[in-house]
Amino acid sequence: KIDGGRLWDSLEALGKIGAYLDEETGLVGVRRLALTDQDVAGRELALGWMREAGLAVRLDRMGNVRARREGAQPDLAPIVLGSHLDSVATAGRFDGCLGVLGGLEVIRTLNDEGIGTRRPIELAVWTEEEGCRFGTDMLGSAVAAGRITEPDARALTDAAGISVGEELDRHGLVGPVAVPVDPPAGYLECHIEQGPILGSEGYRIGVVTGVQAILWQRLTFHGRAAHAGTTPDELRRSATLAASLVTVHLDDMVKSGRFGELRASVGRFETSPNLVNIVAAEALITVDLRNPEEEAILAARDELGRYCREVSERTGVTIEAVTTAHTPPANFAPEMMDLVEQTAGELGMNNRRIMSGAGHDAGEMAAICPTGMVFVPGLYDGISHNPREYSTPEACADGVNVLLHCALSLAGR
Amino acid sequence: KIDGGRLWDSLEALGKIGAYLDEETGLVGVRRLALTDQDVAGRELALGWMREAGLAVRLDRMGNVRARREGAQPDLAPIVLGSHLDSVATAGRFDGCLGVLGGLEVIRTLNDEGIGTRRPIELAVWTEEEGCRFGTDMLGSAVAAGRITEPDARALTDAAGISVGEELDRHGLVGPVAVPVDPPAGYLECHIEQGPILGSEGYRIGVVTGVQAILWQRLTFHGRAAHAGTTPDELRRSATLAASLVTVHLDDMVKSGRFGELRASVGRFETSPNLVNIVAAEALITVDLRNPEEEAILAARDELGRYCREVSERTGVTIEAVTTAHTPPANFAPEMMDLVEQTAGELGMNNRRIMSGAGHDAGEMAAICPTGMVFVPGLYDGISHNPREYSTPEACADGVNVLLHCALSLAGR
Ligand SMILES: NC(=O)NCCC(=O)O
Ligand SMILES: NC(=O)NCCC(=O)O
Repeated sequence: KIDGGRLWDSLEALGKIGAYLDEETGLVGVRRLALTDQDVAGRELALGWMREAGLAVRLDRMGNVRARREGAQPDLAPIVLGSHLDSVATAGRFDGCLGVLGGLEVIRTLNDEGIGTRRPIELAVWTEEEGCRFGTDMLGSAVAAGRITEPDARALTDAAGISVGEELDRHGLVGPVAVPVDPPAGYLECHIEQGPILGSEGYRIGVVTGVQAILWQRLTFHGRAAHAGTTPDELRRSATLAASLVTVHLDDMVKSGRFGELRASVGRFETSPNLVNIVAAEALITVDLRNPEEEAILAARDELGRYCREVSERTGVTIEAVTTAHTPPANFAPEMMDLVEQTAGELGMNNRRIMSGAGHDAGEMAAICPTGMVFVPGLYDGISHNPREYSTPEACADGVNVLLHCALSLAGR
Repeated sequence: KIDGGRLWDSLEALGKIGAYLDEETGLVGVRRLALTDQDVAGRELALGWMREAGLAVRLDRMGNVRARREGAQPDLAPIVLGSHLDSVATAGRFDGCLGVLGGLEVIRTLNDEGIGTRRPIELAVWTEEEGCRFGTDMLGSAVAAGRITEPDARALTDAAGISVGEELDRHGLVGPVAVPVDPPAGYLECHIEQGPILGSEGYRIGVVTGVQAILWQRLTFHGRAAHAGTTPDELRRSATLAASLVTVHLDDMVKSGRFGELRASVGRFETSPNLVNIVAAEALITVDLRNPEEEAILAARDELGRYCREVSERTGVTIEAVTTAHTPPANFAPEMMDLVEQTAGELGMNNRRIMSGAGHDAGEMAAICPTGMVFVPGLYDGISHNPREYSTPEACADGVNVLLHCALSLAGR
């Protein structure tokens, strides 16, 4: 049994790195965008704990961390436990951190109990999981798993034009481990659900079946700057109007039910010159589409493209679309689902199978090794990417206890 | 007859202050937002020319410039010619500058010809006419005319929280002339039309009948930050969606014809946290309404309010509206319209009466003295608030020749 108090203390201590006062909620939130100084400070705290726990810390070329507890048979491929420490700009303390610190708590517990394993166990901390800064989510694990190349990843830039490569170099995070990495024997990630299902149905554990498809586009609108007072309607090419029409249409698409369980969000919305009495010449929006079915997400993307052409025709605004992320649905290995389900059952925790609405590094690892995930419920309808994100100490301990026993069974005593 | 070449040279020289390379058009535009260093540099250039022309330069408490050419009867109220030198962020070289430098060219011509006038003639340069930086247009002239108080004006802030008062103090622009000012005997302003009418109908001069009503609101949307991948539609409160619905509805209102000749523009559109996979908690948009009829603009404002309540109901997003500017239609004095019309006719310039789509300082001065405006056509459908804004040397000279003869007739030889 893991030490739930120690796990909770670690979560609280890490939550102080990058803490900020959130105006919307009045709560203290977390802001550790990937590869910022805050993110690196968060890593340093966690890596210190890992070293204290006796782990050998290595980095790969994307700054992904691997911290190793040796096994009785060092030549066997390791079991990897992990998640990420970067956060969105308005985060809580759980998303990502629970998986990393949960893995650490597993190691600490094995150390306390003097339990050795046959296979090595490694903790992974993945770089830029959120995708908030450089526009592509699960970036570090995608390079580790071989879906994205290292040069492509290094070339991505943030809104200020700073590249992933520059930031990795600046922080000295380019390590010796080659990417793509050698496939581990198995990968396990514990995470807060970030949705309402487990909480509302009263389950303690979610046995994750996979990750729904994700498709991100960045749309840029090229209209014409014009005087708001003098320009007749028929001479306008308002980039803002065109972007708003697309935003409203995406919502109509969701509500129409024509694309299955589609989720669609316009997260960024920027206009230029962005002044009160000027019809905007330029606009930029990001579109985040999700769907459990690859076919349905592609149909939604096509409908978005069709509607953009219609809007372009109607408003005289040209629209460019760039796909910045696209991961088809990931399906986890049946034996890993069975293991998580059986372990939770043996520990007396009621559970259900559940597909993940959010992207996870586990979705990338599923491409190269048997992968499983353990979800724990969040309060407040499972709200996440918001300082109100909250999971109880008991729920966190539940998830990490499942993680411990699954890891032990995979690594062998 | 004025010197059209000298006028044009002055416009070109001033256009170099605050010049920037515009990405949308590939042209060199002008960016002299009110009370920035660029704006003050533009003033300094023009004030130097005024002093060279023998004018006595004074400032009022809002930084509005009055540069005086004495009359034979100094105790008589002056005739004021003027406009503004501040610009929007994506401006051309004419909006405002033609009125100020046109007035200067009138003075230079009188000097060259050794013509004295009975009344003094003063040049005015008004502070923050565009409203782009501090959110309220015609700010300096509105304070001079008594519609807005000096403390209210000084308290307005820009997006960075810097106030009008701070900027006036920083640049040393708080002068000794009290506001509201003593009413002049008459006010005349020459301006580029900023619209397509004169150009498309082939008129050389527009006899301006007044300025249509302007109503600006700043709307803030308070929703809830949420995860784009996990949050079911029914749990979302998307500030971006709500702001987009309002933006689209404003366009529907214009196209419906239900509000007469309504113009509606959403110039600013900002969201927070503005990240790809977060449903935005907060949004801010500005709404710019215009209408020749006060009743119709009020009806449009009411419909906007009603629709915001509907959107609020539908999306769970609360919406706050603040009116940042509201000027009812200004009607110019019939004798001034007659004077401009007659003068243009005598100079052989075909002309028509026209209401202004844009706000002008003349609209404020109309409240305290007989006021007139002279429009000259712009090319390219009269596009303005865009580096493509353009009026020919001949058209500019036409307008300023009308200004010269009207001023002479009002000031008396
Ligand atoms: N777990 C999580 O929030 N991942 C971020 C990637 C995404 O789903 O947008
Ligand atoms: N002339 C002019 O562009 N004025 C700016 C105020 C406005 O009409 O928005």
